[in-house]
Amino acid sequence: MRFTKMHGAGNDYVYVDCFRQDLPSNIEQLAIAAADRHFGIGGDGLILICPSERADAEMRMYNADGSYSEMCGNGIRCVAKYMYDHGLAKKETLTIESGGNVLTLELSTNGGKVDRVRVDMGEPVLEAAQIPTRLGGKQVVEAPLECDGNLYRVTAVSMGNPHCVIFVAHASDDLVFGVGPQIEHDPAFPNRVNVEFVEQISRTQLRQRTWERGSGETLACGTGASAVCVAGVLTGRTERCVEIDLLGGRLELEWNETDNHVYMTGPAVEVFSGEWFPAGE
Amino acid sequence: MRFTKMHGAGNDYVYVDCFRQDLPSNIEQLAIAAADRHFGIGGDGLILICPSERADAEMRMYNADGSYSEMCGNGIRCVAKYMYDHGLAKKETLTIESGGNVLTLELSTNGGKVDRVRVDMGEPVLEAAQIPTRLGGKQVVEAPLECDGNLYRVTAVSMGNPHCVIFVAHASDDLVFGVGPQIEHDPAFPNRVNVEFVEQISRTQLRQRTWERGSGETLACGTGASAVCVAGVLTGRTERCVEIDLLGGRLELEWNETDNHVYMTGPAVEVFSGEWFPAGE
Repeated sequence: MRFTKMHGAGNDYVYVDCFRQDLPSNIEQLAIAAADRHFGIGGDGLILICPSERADAEMRMYNADGSYSEMCGNGIRCVAKYMYDHGLAKKETLTIESGGNVLTLELSTNGGKVDRVRVDMGEPVLEAAQIPTRLGGKQVVEAPLECDGNLYRVTAVSMGNPHCVIFVAHASDDLVFGVGPQIEHDPAFPNRVNVEFVEQISRTQLRQRTWERGSGETLACGTGASAVCVAGVLTGRTERCVEIDLLGGRLELEWNETDNHVYMTGPAVEVFSGEWFPAGE
Repeated sequence: MRFTKMHGAGNDYVYVDCFRQDLPSNIEQLAIAAADRHFGIGGDGLILICPSERADAEMRMYNADGSYSEMCGNGIRCVAKYMYDHGLAKKETLTIESGGNVLTLELSTNGGKVDRVRVDMGEPVLEAAQIPTRLGGKQVVEAPLECDGNLYRVTAVSMGNPHCVIFVAHASDDLVFGVGPQIEHDPAFPNRVNVEFVEQISRTQLRQRTWERGSGETLACGTGASAVCVAGVLTGRTERCVEIDLLGGRLELEWNETDNHVYMTGPAVEVFSGEWFPAGE
């Protein structure tokens, strides 16, 4: 099977071009095998780049455990890069369908290849019941949450998935690995929650570590960075345009005042491409 | 850069054919970049397959941190598979130079491709001073070693690198992650030591988990499995031919009575091949 390995801020997937080869069968099994970092190609999951009737392409994303996922902000940038660089759609504004939604992406090129992509991440959801969280009030901004005898001030934002953003002086291992999983499973978040620990550098610069629901710490989380951008504005800490340094790289975020959408701009990198010989083939 | 990804019992490396392309420059940097599982190809390190004046090929092995390594029993099987399958040496007995030594390998094929390889791992070193260990006696067989208030019976064997083999009822996480690193750094082993926790299933079957010096738990360790085979015989537990199940797969070991050499037989698997685009190229 032909494939291409790409990453966006360290969030790495195996990409298969289903315009040029048949859609593989047994996709869940294939995703598990492909994502295995010792016995397979290795990655956070498998993304199929497929024809779409509603957009320039459809992204179908599978996690490393084989489960289907609606959306990945870092993955969709790489899909856009692939479409352009490999001649599937030679234009600088692309539409990509993902999880039933059609997203618009703006491509920046360097030397004829895409190096950065801007993604419309849509509108944040701030109503507590819709995030969902049981923390009080209509919106949850700097709400007190007790964990292990310590009080944290948390801001809850959904970008299609729930996030709990906590501004801290130092995003330490103790917070990420100790407090992160406890808040993930706190009864205040009935669907569990992704937890972002954020250091403020200035009104336009932040540093973020992410505890992802079901995955642990990850190098980059696009919806998490979007939630952090929104939380910075809601708490009066930051401007509407910020740069966020994640473990895997830098993302630029904007919560646009006019249309209320969050826009994320970040890198997309092709690392290698090749032919995979799954066991039994 | 063209490469091939292979693994032997889960011990996975990026292989570069230096018969057919020039030896890369800056190999240490390249190894670090190639081994990175998120931003590079991903693997336990980089192995160059080079012409040799003394053997059919030379294996030059670099760990994930860029450091040079003399020998890897799982890696050298894959070098042999590559030589045969890719037409560099179409014979079933190969010699491969590694770390200044020339090793002889016997290849088994299935459908015209190599699937298992037998490696002469050389003679074990049993003299305490040469392993080195400060544990008493000329040889160290079931010697008492205290760790955290518990007494362990340990057998020390060098296969070019030092090993401490401990037979246990259950090779638990507590032993591997708790006791393993403590014994690694115990003053009884001045050069530190690899620690094997071994469950005996029968006189010919063992199950092994390995705490590797400087690496933590690994999926497979060829010299470690060799040391376990020797320790099984020294302690009267096992026959000279055993099957050992490691986390990454099964190895067959023989401590040959006639020549005193240890022979290891195990799988070699090609997973994918491709073209890598290192940053800046």
